Amino acid sequence: MSWFDEKGPEGDVVLSSRIRLARNFEDLPFPDIISVEQSQVAIKRCKEALLDKGSSLSPQLQFLDLKAMDDTSRQALVEKHLISPDLARNYSKGGLILKNDNSVSIMINEEDHIRIQCFAAGLNPEAAWDIADKIDDLLEENESFAFDEELGYITACPTNVGTGLRVSVMMHLPALVKTGNINNVIENINKLGITVRGIYGEGTQALGDIFQISNQVTLGRSERDIIGNIRGLAMEILNAERSTIEALLKSSKLQIEDMVYRAFGLLSNARVLTSEETLRLLSDVRMGVNMGMIDVPITVLNKLLIMTRPANLQLMCGRRLEPYERDIKRAEYVKEILKTQSGGV
Amino acid sequence: MSWFDEKGPEGDVVLSSRIRLARNFEDLPFPDIISVEQSQVAIKRCKEALLDKGSSLSPQLQFLDLKAMDDTSRQALVEKHLISPDLARNYSKGGLILKNDNSVSIMINEEDHIRIQCFAAGLNPEAAWDIADKIDDLLEENESFAFDEELGYITACPTNVGTGLRVSVMMHLPALVKTGNINNVIENINKLGITVRGIYGEGTQALGDIFQISNQVTLGRSERDIIGNIRGLAMEILNAERSTIEALLKSSKLQIEDMVYRAFGLLSNARVLTSEETLRLLSDVRMGVNMGMIDVPITVLNKLLIMTRPANLQLMCGRRLEPYERDIKRAEYVKEILKTQSGGV
Repeated sequence: MSWFDEKGPEGDVVLSSRIRLARNFEDLPFPDIISVEQSQVAIKRCKEALLDKGSSLSPQLQFLDLKAMDDTSRQALVEKHLISPDLARNYSKGGLILKNDNSVSIMINEEDHIRIQCFAAGLNPEAAWDIADKIDDLLEENESFAFDEELGYITACPTNVGTGLRVSVMMHLPALVKTGNINNVIENINKLGITVRGIYGEGTQALGDIFQISNQVTLGRSERDIIGNIRGLAMEILNAERSTIEALLKSSKLQIEDMVYRAFGLLSNARVLTSEETLRLLSDVRMGVNMGMIDVPITVLNKLLIMTRPANLQLMCGRRLEPYERDIKRAEYVKEILKTQSGGV
Repeated sequence: MSWFDEKGPEGDVVLSSRIRLARNFEDLPFPDIISVEQSQVAIKRCKEALLDKGSSLSPQLQFLDLKAMDDTSRQALVEKHLISPDLARNYSKGGLILKNDNSVSIMINEEDHIRIQCFAAGLNPEAAWDIADKIDDLLEENESFAFDEELGYITACPTNVGTGLRVSVMMHLPALVKTGNINNVIENINKLGITVRGIYGEGTQALGDIFQISNQVTLGRSERDIIGNIRGLAMEILNAERSTIEALLKSSKLQIEDMVYRAFGLLSNARVLTSEETLRLLSDVRMGVNMGMIDVPITVLNKLLIMTRPANLQLMCGRRLEPYERDIKRAEYVKEILKTQSGGV
């Protein structure tokens, strides 16, 4: 059971919320110039503070040795947003502590010594913050972090100096994309120093119509402020998406219904599905669910969005697959899941 | 029950065979210059010979007054190939005698005074010929046809002079179209004075991949010769289609299966279907049936090919429909038929 198996608050539009805290040990060089021995020290300290000390969290956490994994397993973690593409490439000095439901992932020796990431389903950055904060406390009980009274936490990249906090919200915005309104939304939000980017692809070409909204600057603002700010913006975008959905239902219900059911028909019948087409079709069906047109549990669609990514698919099949083989297995998997887990379609 | 509800010989590839005999009364001017009174004489003679004389066929034949029909009903007859587009446009002096299973259609005052058309499912021009010949005999018992000892039957257009016979075979050739081999086939056959044309559209753009093969010249050859010639050519094309299907199954089974099931998925889920897309998708599914990939009765697909044409669809709905309304009704109808009449899909 993963955190993304449940539908969270505002789960029609918001897939997930993520909190990321960047921290560095004051007595070790930043990871880009750290020695192998020093990198092991950083890992050891994290393990001691989080696994060995016997907090209430400890039994649910486990250390994963990235070096012992194959490329596919590391890539599968990237697809689940549990580690960064950067750590998947430069894993020799890195480490990972993971919570058993995938809701907490602590990257060690990525850009900073420690990057605490906490996830929550739907629009719920506060819940993710609470657990990130708790982990931060557990770490700080033992260790001293690089900290400046005036600036705050010191990080490898200046944009993270301050709280070291990044709040991200992942949103599914098919109606804004289809009407082209997404461009306005992105433009307006970028003016506020907030980043909007497609998760799979760039700009309006974002595959699956999935976007991540996150703060850029952390300096000079409190954690609660930053979280509140992102929540507020997410609510604005969410309302824009919902009212665009209402408008589409009024103006072109049948065309949308046609699109939704065609997507469902293809997903449940195709024998070959590329990753890109799958994202596009899942997005259409997901919009149909939000419009009350088709009865597929939204958590099933959320799960398919992740499990049909190339590495997770290969992990599920238990072996490396050539791209064309992947497209076949993907089609089989999607068909099977939709057949067994979709409602009265 | 119509003749096209059954699968005839070689019914995988050959949809139907048609015999057409052109005849003219020797004492009346050709229909293009016939007076209204004279046109009524021609109609009266046909009715007397075929309906009133009490042959074994008479109870199954009925006279239809084209003037009493609306445009849609006439157009529906064109879509079923029971009358020509020409007669549907210029119906004021025309008449029609139809057999109750639609396997015989006698057009009166089209280009010639009488055009006997007989249909049979699959590759069976002989069966169609037998009944056409019988009807010809019934007519000739009463009337004298324009006939020249040297040339044979005299017709309005010189190409029909002689036997007045046209033999046509309607074939579904998706594999030849998809591989592009249809171009060679058409070229070779045209050299023999045989016409190949798409039923819905021209050349390789033939919608639904359905082609009609028919003789051009009738002069100086016996009926049996012409029929045998068309049968032989149809068998050649049929074998080419079947071996192309075998080759495709060897080289690209999965891609074809993907295409077939995508077509099925769209047909069973779309909410809006144009006539063109429907033909294209039905062709793909029909090829899948012939490849043993999908279990839909081929007679259901044959029926859909005709019943989804605009006029037949409107006739079924009992009213005129705007083009967009038609596309909606078509999608509803196709979905319903596939749901209730397709096998274990």
